[in-house]
Amino acid sequence: MRQAGRYLPEYRQIRAKHDFLTMCKTPELASEVTVQPIDIIKTDAAILFSDILVIPEAMGMRLDVIESKGPVFDVPIRSLEQIENLQTDGLIERLDYVMQAVKMTKEKLNNRIPLIGFSGSPWTLAAYMVEGQGSKNFDVIKSFVYNESAAAHRLLQILADSVVEYLNAKIRHGCDAVQIFDTWASILSPHDFEEYSLKYIRYICEHLETNGAPVIVFAKGVSSYKNLADLKCDVLGVDWARNIGDVRREIGGVKALQGNLDPTVLFAPKEKIREETERVLRSYGKNAGHIFNLGHGITPKTPVENTQYFVECVKELSAKYHED
Amino acid sequence: MRQAGRYLPEYRQIRAKHDFLTMCKTPELASEVTVQPIDIIKTDAAILFSDILVIPEAMGMRLDVIESKGPVFDVPIRSLEQIENLQTDGLIERLDYVMQAVKMTKEKLNNRIPLIGFSGSPWTLAAYMVEGQGSKNFDVIKSFVYNESAAAHRLLQILADSVVEYLNAKIRHGCDAVQIFDTWASILSPHDFEEYSLKYIRYICEHLETNGAPVIVFAKGVSSYKNLADLKCDVLGVDWARNIGDVRREIGGVKALQGNLDPTVLFAPKEKIREETERVLRSYGKNAGHIFNLGHGITPKTPVENTQYFVECVKELSAKYHED
Repeated sequence: MRQAGRYLPEYRQIRAKHDFLTMCKTPELASEVTVQPIDIIKTDAAILFSDILVIPEAMGMRLDVIESKGPVFDVPIRSLEQIENLQTDGLIERLDYVMQAVKMTKEKLNNRIPLIGFSGSPWTLAAYMVEGQGSKNFDVIKSFVYNESAAAHRLLQILADSVVEYLNAKIRHGCDAVQIFDTWASILSPHDFEEYSLKYIRYICEHLETNGAPVIVFAKGVSSYKNLADLKCDVLGVDWARNIGDVRREIGGVKALQGNLDPTVLFAPKEKIREETERVLRSYGKNAGHIFNLGHGITPKTPVENTQYFVECVKELSAKYHED
Repeated sequence: MRQAGRYLPEYRQIRAKHDFLTMCKTPELASEVTVQPIDIIKTDAAILFSDILVIPEAMGMRLDVIESKGPVFDVPIRSLEQIENLQTDGLIERLDYVMQAVKMTKEKLNNRIPLIGFSGSPWTLAAYMVEGQGSKNFDVIKSFVYNESAAAHRLLQILADSVVEYLNAKIRHGCDAVQIFDTWASILSPHDFEEYSLKYIRYICEHLETNGAPVIVFAKGVSSYKNLADLKCDVLGVDWARNIGDVRREIGGVKALQGNLDPTVLFAPKEKIREETERVLRSYGKNAGHIFNLGHGITPKTPVENTQYFVECVKELSAKYHED
């Protein structure tokens, strides 16, 4: 829900005619819904319409996106044999539809604003691939990493290499920045986060050929940012549960921070939207290095006019926090 | 899932014959499943089998507990009128089945180990009452508090007063300690957590007649413990996403801490269970003030023998961390 304007009537009109994966796989449609919110909401960056699970799908896992249930893999990964059978050769060729969507979006944007491409982190991708779908307790993926540790690390390494290839290709095809989402960072204890997630994010950051494109790492719900501060990336995403000023102090200001308004504030009256926007700006404080954003994806039923008002507030209120 | 042994075959045998609410409402059954894990798992405290939603149910909200979906309220709270119609008079009388379960459990325990009683926090109760069921984004409760702020605060205050009455009654009937669960603390930004949740937890702590019974506050997923350090309570629960030693330092050791092994570690091989148990002990460090616990409720399919082994590990490994 974070990318494109899935809460927009203009999006839903297109979505009514095509299923979700078809939209991801059709560059004309993906690029169209990517640029939709730019004119309507007036954000100052676009994020490519896609899904993190196109990578495992291109590795041969059959994926269904069921509206009420979210993504479901028919045959989840449960063994080393299945992992070794994942089709990694020719992966980027099979994901060429994403690259064509990048090119088409760049043409439609015509250099008005930058385009962000994204990928799931290896841990978050593995969690979906092993669970087979969303989960409450994530006991299947955790049992897997604890009991089949070698197989789990093999899967995570395959995914890390694939994400490097994938994001490098996105950058080559025109993405101006890339973001790595670790949506399920929060379900790991600090020690397991280091072992099963951060290690592979670090690997990706070190192997990207960015050609100057900024790299954003968003590890949702992580309890400490200290361990993220030495990543070879430019920006850390901060979810809304944290005070962004505290995070800035915690990492000693070594990275730019992106965040972190609670997305549900967009359901509030205008005064509250304005007040909470200013609270985030004030919390971060003066000087460069703050990219204003929601602290997570936008919620489906968000009123469009509130989103428009929020962007206006950011533009107006942030002026006084800009570096002199 | 946190209380009683819902993962035990002995529990499931009883559950097969009675629906969940009937078990909560039948002191004989509730007390029986409360003491079940004591002999099997050998924990050193019992926690009363019940559900946080018995309070709104006793206020007149019809509650169904649907196995696959969790608890569902037929008619969620959406207006001040509904809030004013909640039946708070005679609440504790209608919850007398809980008090009888406390008494019966105390008899069955026969002073072997202490009994913990619990309640949901006002915020967590309100979230269920307004959403009507579990939620992904909690946009309904958040829209409600943002748009109907006065009504929301009225509801939270009614709940705070009811929780005080309820926990006081539990203590009077024999509970040796009480715990307040704020399961949904994590969905609030730090500022909103203070306004909609912590304020009411503080009120409860200040109004309890504990008669010496320790009070435990567990605010799951809260990003900072500093603001909890001045609560009039004895223990803070820590979920597994945090390093418990960091939390101890953050609050300057002014409270005992309860936690915080990742419950899914109980799906791991024995070596990992032992290693992670020791990691938590080492993280907290020496001296008094640590109550070992899981960092959240036990997961349904947890193998019983792993849970037994975990308790053995805690007892064995914690000895060297005890205060000299």
